[in-house]
Amino acid sequence: MERLDQQMRFVAEIGLLKGVLRQTMLGGLGRRENSAEHSWHIALMALALAEYAPAGTDIGRVVAMLLVHDLVEIDAGDLFVYADEAQQARQRQMEQTAADRIFALLPPGQAAGLRTLWDEFEERRTPEARFARGIDRLQPMLENLKVGGGTWTEHQITADQVLAKVVLIEDGSPELGRYARDLITGAVRTGLLLPPRDPARP
Amino acid sequence: MERLDQQMRFVAEIGLLKGVLRQTMLGGLGRRENSAEHSWHIALMALALAEYAPAGTDIGRVVAMLLVHDLVEIDAGDLFVYADEAQQARQRQMEQTAADRIFALLPPGQAAGLRTLWDEFEERRTPEARFARGIDRLQPMLENLKVGGGTWTEHQITADQVLAKVVLIEDGSPELGRYARDLITGAVRTGLLLPPRDPARP
Repeated sequence: MERLDQQMRFVAEIGLLKGVLRQTMLGGLGRRENSAEHSWHIALMALALAEYAPAGTDIGRVVAMLLVHDLVEIDAGDLFVYADEAQQARQRQMEQTAADRIFALLPPGQAAGLRTLWDEFEERRTPEARFARGIDRLQPMLENLKVGGGTWTEHQITADQVLAKVVLIEDGSPELGRYARDLITGAVRTGLLLPPRDPARP
Repeated sequence: MERLDQQMRFVAEIGLLKGVLRQTMLGGLGRRENSAEHSWHIALMALALAEYAPAGTDIGRVVAMLLVHDLVEIDAGDLFVYADEAQQARQRQMEQTAADRIFALLPPGQAAGLRTLWDEFEERRTPEARFARGIDRLQPMLENLKVGGGTWTEHQITADQVLAKVVLIEDGSPELGRYARDLITGAVRTGLLLPPRDPARP
């Protein structure tokens, strides 16, 4: 197949991400968010919040990572962030298989380049991947607050569960982590989020 | 207002782009495309097709430009690419006003940076802006072909009208321009697009 034709097959295939729905409800629109528009939002967030990444972070790489990070959901679907460990493990397996298929639509060298970006995001070892993951975790919190609780209310999520995810934000950016922690405190105070579960009463 | 709070107002505001509908119909989904998911698609296209940009093009800048290029539609809405000149002029005016408002949600220095990106895209003078504009024009053609004609059929668009837009693609990338021209020839041959209007018969 001609190189450009092969690249255009990838371009067509990735369009399917517009049909993958996330749990997040969009305030004012009365519908769930899809993974393509979510990816756009967080890529632009990374540009707008770049100054909160550790010094020396390559923001262009963060943006590229965020643009590709959800492509695997074309095959694997989106899993709710509070799904249990067994579901998460199954999801990781499906996403690996999806990555094998989707990136391989591109010519080999290019496929390897984008796959490396995706692996880097998943492994969360570089400052770029950590910052990207933090932004990816922050955005649904902001959306939940906008709709007065959203998936937190719907699934009876408690503050301790949300705080466990804030660790990922702090890991990418201490300032954004602090900001998220304050949001959660505020959400508990205003009743948008259930207080931490009392570990003494299961 | 605290700097981060101000940036977070911008982050919340840009989310409204998910509610701006374009003319493009999405194959398989049976709905119109919104400007946020469109922006994601073309940003990732710019990465996948980077090798067709003129040598030395800063692809990170192209991607950033594509991420912000449609934000003005939050206020101005999306105008069909084949709208008449009077409508286009009105739209340009509304988009300037929208840019003044939306970018100014950010702290001044940062607002100026993103506004410069938007202006650069609009002015189409740098290789980055030309490549970005070309990708922005190519994507709806690909979507129309996927749905068997799409907005071309719906609005009885003829090949000469589409070819006038291909000039923008060629201007950003000769290879992608050639590819688009071939697509149009094929679309006329298979009946997905009306042949050029005979200028002798108005």
